[in-house]
Amino acid sequence: MSPSPSSPPHAPPADRVISAGWVVPVIPRGAVYRDCAVVIAGERILELLPRAEAIRKHPAAKFLHLPDSLLMPGLVNAHGHAAMTLFRGLADDLPLTTWLEQHIWPAEARWVSADFVADGTRLAIAEMLATGTTCFADMYFYPDEVARVARQARIRAQIAFPILEFATPWARDADEYLHKGLAVYDDNRGDPLLRIAFGPHAPYTVADATLERIATYTEELEASVHIHLHETAREVAEAIATHGERPSARLHRFGLLSRTTQCVHMTQVDASDCELLATTGASVIHCPESNLKLASGFCPVHRLRSAGIPVALGTDGAASNNDLDLFGEMQTAALLAKGLSGDPSRLGAAEVIEMATLGGATALGLDTEIGSLEAGKAADMIAVEFTDPGAMPLYNPLSQLVYTGCGRRVSHAWVAGHCVLDARAHQTIDLPALTARVREWRDRLAGNTR
Amino acid sequence: MSPSPSSPPHAPPADRVISAGWVVPVIPRGAVYRDCAVVIAGERILELLPRAEAIRKHPAAKFLHLPDSLLMPGLVNAHGHAAMTLFRGLADDLPLTTWLEQHIWPAEARWVSADFVADGTRLAIAEMLATGTTCFADMYFYPDEVARVARQARIRAQIAFPILEFATPWARDADEYLHKGLAVYDDNRGDPLLRIAFGPHAPYTVADATLERIATYTEELEASVHIHLHETAREVAEAIATHGERPSARLHRFGLLSRTTQCVHMTQVDASDCELLATTGASVIHCPESNLKLASGFCPVHRLRSAGIPVALGTDGAASNNDLDLFGEMQTAALLAKGLSGDPSRLGAAEVIEMATLGGATALGLDTEIGSLEAGKAADMIAVEFTDPGAMPLYNPLSQLVYTGCGRRVSHAWVAGHCVLDARAHQTIDLPALTARVREWRDRLAGNTR
Repeated sequence: MSPSPSSPPHAPPADRVISAGWVVPVIPRGAVYRDCAVVIAGERILELLPRAEAIRKHPAAKFLHLPDSLLMPGLVNAHGHAAMTLFRGLADDLPLTTWLEQHIWPAEARWVSADFVADGTRLAIAEMLATGTTCFADMYFYPDEVARVARQARIRAQIAFPILEFATPWARDADEYLHKGLAVYDDNRGDPLLRIAFGPHAPYTVADATLERIATYTEELEASVHIHLHETAREVAEAIATHGERPSARLHRFGLLSRTTQCVHMTQVDASDCELLATTGASVIHCPESNLKLASGFCPVHRLRSAGIPVALGTDGAASNNDLDLFGEMQTAALLAKGLSGDPSRLGAAEVIEMATLGGATALGLDTEIGSLEAGKAADMIAVEFTDPGAMPLYNPLSQLVYTGCGRRVSHAWVAGHCVLDARAHQTIDLPALTARVREWRDRLAGNTR
Repeated sequence: MSPSPSSPPHAPPADRVISAGWVVPVIPRGAVYRDCAVVIAGERILELLPRAEAIRKHPAAKFLHLPDSLLMPGLVNAHGHAAMTLFRGLADDLPLTTWLEQHIWPAEARWVSADFVADGTRLAIAEMLATGTTCFADMYFYPDEVARVARQARIRAQIAFPILEFATPWARDADEYLHKGLAVYDDNRGDPLLRIAFGPHAPYTVADATLERIATYTEELEASVHIHLHETAREVAEAIATHGERPSARLHRFGLLSRTTQCVHMTQVDASDCELLATTGASVIHCPESNLKLASGFCPVHRLRSAGIPVALGTDGAASNNDLDLFGEMQTAALLAKGLSGDPSRLGAAEVIEMATLGGATALGLDTEIGSLEAGKAADMIAVEFTDPGAMPLYNPLSQLVYTGCGRRVSHAWVAGHCVLDARAHQTIDLPALTARVREWRDRLAGNTR
């Protein structure tokens, strides 16, 4: 299978040609091109060409050829709490309420600060870039720090500022969350790689009046809403008891379900939810490993997709996963869909790759910009190296990507044409300095000086 | 936590001391020793000591210190078909019968040979050693080749020769399978690293008369039985229709359930099965990723363990997984147990590590020899390096091992004291030669010359 050339007649000159043994463009779905080149002009993809043709057509460009590797769009991790990497492994294998109330919330109250968020986010970005994620959606305190660190690391991000009714180290009440969040929104307007979204934490932590204000702001600003929704059966049951309606219906009542709403988790989906999501165009972020680890329930991915609802993939935070490897998440999503449905043909490799790339881009409203390797899109791309014994033999690159743990095989990552991971070496993060900082946090949190 | 010295009064002299930042001995369960040394004499562990003490006590020994790594027993992959790595990714996302009847069986009929098994097994061993497995249980054709290659690679193995009623490239009928298998059994008797077991493929592919013969032989030889059992609900339903009893009961009727029986899969377990397994002492091999990918059902691990039934972990073959990374299998087993039960405290990190080490050793009848780091046991051990961003910070080494994809972090492996993986470099496998051979197989199977 070969791509057809597509550069417009008056295109800018190509400055780089990156070619590989295999290219998975995601669009067309299931396509795998052999010996194909991605031609880049500045931040964008100019065209995809057979390698030999690219060499003939763009002799002045800088060439990189990776014969044993595969090029594909960078992955989109559509839900997480990046800074929580600093809590990785702090508390596991515990009932949900014990975990939250006796471990995570007290740790957040005690430790979360601007510095904590900066270091934790940088650690998360280092892990994500190294495992193939070039765009992440975040929801955490100190979103200004998240934005600053993401900008330094030159990774693409949607940063949702959190909104709650109760006090945390970042803000006292809904009013202050909104006030500070809007400032972050203004400060980052126009950034080519960053988008600021509204992050009402969950229906059960945000009051009606606040939901109403969020609806007003987001409509006016055309901003996205990122919210934990229907994470557990208990959440839905308690909402019905308190509000007399399902959380999805309550959000809809305030006009908060729309094409720019990202509903995270959705393990509880009845016919009314499905219809609401489908008619409003809201998307769902599926976090299978977090849902399994916290025993939250199962998101009915196949039913949602059959109803035309966009579904993206997220790792959630490292405290409930405990890694940020979206390749692992793809594998878990595919295996779980098959196992639960009793149908091994469910959520095949091409479909789950689409969820982790274009699906994420669509959920974040970035599908005209990223999510596939197509002329005109930003050059957000990764290279996956198929040389270790676990990657051989190679019959079907799509199967190999999903079912053989490819996070470890990512060698290169580019964001908007800029190389951020080069032969496994971080180009925008000082790893030794970061390691030293993380060890300091570790010793402080563990209460010893090692 | 520190180990207590335990070398016997007239112990052989220590020749190597391997120390690390953390040691997980598996026994005692949940123990993590800081700055601990494993003292080795020849093929065996002499004692575990605090590092400083080991230096004082064994000054003549050769030292290796891995300050940012963790030492633990090598993992035991208790079920697989090693040579099937050569079919990795050949057919995926298909209904079970299509997959088996239209892809796997025809491919086996056409391609399986002594050479195929040798190369495929070597590829599997390369992947397993690199991801922390130092002992594997296999069931495949040409077990003589499996034994030869395992011996060259110096990995520990239980090799079950297959027994079926129908012809394959290796044998014509049950009689020939048994005849050839018994020859392999005789040829490998006394090998310190290899055990040959009987591998009746499954109750539905082996006739009563053959089961009877297997029972006679295995009782006489005190050999183990490795069998696919209750893999799907359909298998059990069809057995009841054909034989008027569950496959487990049929095996028991022939005396084939005992302490030396390894029942692979067991997704269907009713009260009678549970009682049979518990009273006979048979063990169960749980293969969660294969069961999910083929939608075979769910093995009730917690119920089995609560009934005192030994449960081990296996990857199954690469055609149905598609990797042989037992760390990944641990993670999937733990997440699945929590998700299915609705209880996040189910199958915690220490428990699942025990399943993948001592549990496997117990199932294979090797628990006095391997499965934990204890004085007198064989020095089958691995080192896991905690230096990449995804492995930081380190609060709980057990959580880190299970929930953060540690297959990629294995740097060293020793089998019976012999270093087979040294700073990620294979010591017993010629990787470039293997890669060339695998590419030849790939081109042949894919029907092109690339």
